Amino acid sequence: MRKIAVISYGLTKVEKHWKKSLRELFGEAAKSAMEDARVPGIDALIVGNMCASDLSDQNNIGGLLADYIGISPCPAYRVEAACASGGAAILAGYSAVASGMSDIVMVGGVEKLSDGVANNTTLSLGKAADADYELFFGSSFVSLNALMMNHYMQTYHTPREVFADFAVLMHKNGARNPYAQLPFEISRETVMNSDRIADPITLYDCAPVGDGAAALILCPLEDAPKYSDSYVEISGIAGATDTIDIASRPDILSLNSTVVAADKAYKMAKLTPRDVDIAEIHDTFTITGVLSIEDLGFCEKGKFAKLLDEHAFEPGGAVTINPSGGLKSRGHPVGATGAYQVAEIAMQLLGNAGKMQVPDSEIGLTQNIGGSGSSSFVSILRRAK
Amino acid sequence: MRKIAVISYGLTKVEKHWKKSLRELFGEAAKSAMEDARVPGIDALIVGNMCASDLSDQNNIGGLLADYIGISPCPAYRVEAACASGGAAILAGYSAVASGMSDIVMVGGVEKLSDGVANNTTLSLGKAADADYELFFGSSFVSLNALMMNHYMQTYHTPREVFADFAVLMHKNGARNPYAQLPFEISRETVMNSDRIADPITLYDCAPVGDGAAALILCPLEDAPKYSDSYVEISGIAGATDTIDIASRPDILSLNSTVVAADKAYKMAKLTPRDVDIAEIHDTFTITGVLSIEDLGFCEKGKFAKLLDEHAFEPGGAVTINPSGGLKSRGHPVGATGAYQVAEIAMQLLGNAGKMQVPDSEIGLTQNIGGSGSSSFVSILRRAK
Repeated sequence: MRKIAVISYGLTKVEKHWKKSLRELFGEAAKSAMEDARVPGIDALIVGNMCASDLSDQNNIGGLLADYIGISPCPAYRVEAACASGGAAILAGYSAVASGMSDIVMVGGVEKLSDGVANNTTLSLGKAADADYELFFGSSFVSLNALMMNHYMQTYHTPREVFADFAVLMHKNGARNPYAQLPFEISRETVMNSDRIADPITLYDCAPVGDGAAALILCPLEDAPKYSDSYVEISGIAGATDTIDIASRPDILSLNSTVVAADKAYKMAKLTPRDVDIAEIHDTFTITGVLSIEDLGFCEKGKFAKLLDEHAFEPGGAVTINPSGGLKSRGHPVGATGAYQVAEIAMQLLGNAGKMQVPDSEIGLTQNIGGSGSSSFVSILRRAK
Repeated sequence: MRKIAVISYGLTKVEKHWKKSLRELFGEAAKSAMEDARVPGIDALIVGNMCASDLSDQNNIGGLLADYIGISPCPAYRVEAACASGGAAILAGYSAVASGMSDIVMVGGVEKLSDGVANNTTLSLGKAADADYELFFGSSFVSLNALMMNHYMQTYHTPREVFADFAVLMHKNGARNPYAQLPFEISRETVMNSDRIADPITLYDCAPVGDGAAALILCPLEDAPKYSDSYVEISGIAGATDTIDIASRPDILSLNSTVVAADKAYKMAKLTPRDVDIAEIHDTFTITGVLSIEDLGFCEKGKFAKLLDEHAFEPGGAVTINPSGGLKSRGHPVGATGAYQVAEIAMQLLGNAGKMQVPDSEIGLTQNIGGSGSSSFVSILRRAK
């Protein structure tokens, strides 16, 4: 199997892009990625998106975007795995290049949530849950995560403040990210006293609703020097699934899809969690971030509070978590988030992260979750040149 | 690159499955495919679907279906390219196996259109068109195709009856298909006198709205004998795109995405249109069928009427078109249609097509279109054992 490199990336700032359409947003990211790579053309486009059908009346965005960015008639399609659509698109693109079906593939994601009114957006995001057994009975996405958070606090005797402190750390990181939707620092009190969304989750435990697009160009590692002066290798990549409804899981405090995908990706890269310097993980809610960190092997189950207190997840610690600010502060343009994560890790490994730069980063990991853990996609990157 | 085989398939009848949910429908197809193959497990699931978000409030169906059919924690995601979602899923699955990322992959599609009320379904299907430049201005999917049909009739001096006669042939074929939604013969008068939907398209020029699911199991050709006694090889496969809005095309009577995808697939299989014995092509409307047949190279542009009259598209002719009855009679469970087509060709090549069987079929082709030709996916199959 051919080894695969990420030779360039492009991002938009995450925010409410009232004046930009879905195609314009993706076009901005794609143009930036194409300007940074000396490629003769793009052989295929695979793009992650969740809500365009609901909120922009638009399906069929593979063809739409391929035409808009001027790469038709190359094949193009959309990949959807709820919030993990971007991660799934990257896995699909990896396979397309690894197989030899395509040589130069653009993967990415785009999401325009601000096209919807608030109720529509909540319903649209709720469709990541089980429509027949969760959504129909009134479970919103945040209420399902509130159940998980309550259960964690009780099971591991973890004070509510620990989750607030994680949000504080994410905002501290995101304040240095020029692409972040919420680039400002907050205090523990801000989180504790913000509006209650689904007890115990408050507003500042949640990733904000925003728009954004990210695009990456993949090619065989051996061809990368032709197209770019610096690039990263995807040395491990995997996806996995779990039950979509949380009630069917033996333990709602373990994201089994993350455990399985991470295990496969570590094996493929011949690495362990201890080798990872930086990680962009999926913290839709603070509880999602905590469970993810544990299930990726960065922390023993239930021990998050202790390690957070020891600064294990900051530069100089065991693994720097979300130097971008994560979903909490960078924002969560749903179907694009997985592509943002890979772009952000590439930026770090190549030393292009500006004020976000974490020194001595050689190995990076991304973890992108769909639904309440029904899907996970994990990739491991290393600087190749 | 590894060669790929289709070792088994499963289908549901296409109809309005009022009493079956999305997951139950796909489960039925998947169970049937799994029963026919002696595989130790499934390594990944890639499923095509267009309208579940709109009509069943369900996204994230990769994880949902993987769990429901009992193959979690394998990776799973949904692929969407409007009506070509099934074809795109097969291309993605082909790459997954060809790359060596996965060995045994289930690909397929599912669509449950009867969950919507009529207006919702029309709007949902309309999202295959350009939301900003077509749908917003009131162009429905059928009205766009009516423009193409009018233009064809005028450009090539083709009587309206020719399109009716194509529908008659499709129903003649479909009447022998146990999986067909409209398994009955019709007359030219039925088409001509049926309700006008968007002039000149009448009800019987249109594929019906229905539900269905199809699943296929792919594996490396060299492993196929371990799992199945008879199987087909996918000897060519490709996708291509065109502008999503028809107004931007230099010629609305050529489906350029089909021309490009077919050309690539023929080259990959080292075959020409003359080598193809049977084809399942994408006749959403009769005009779509006519353009497809021409753009696949089975007929010179504008000469469809003459060849239809010479019985070129029936058994004994140059190429048997849609022995299943095609979208017109078998039905068009949107995101599943591309998977139905491959299953139907496999059935024919393996001599399992019962009353539909076309004698002496060795090479088969499928063509699956998204939107009004914005995407096309073409595959070429041959009996391997």
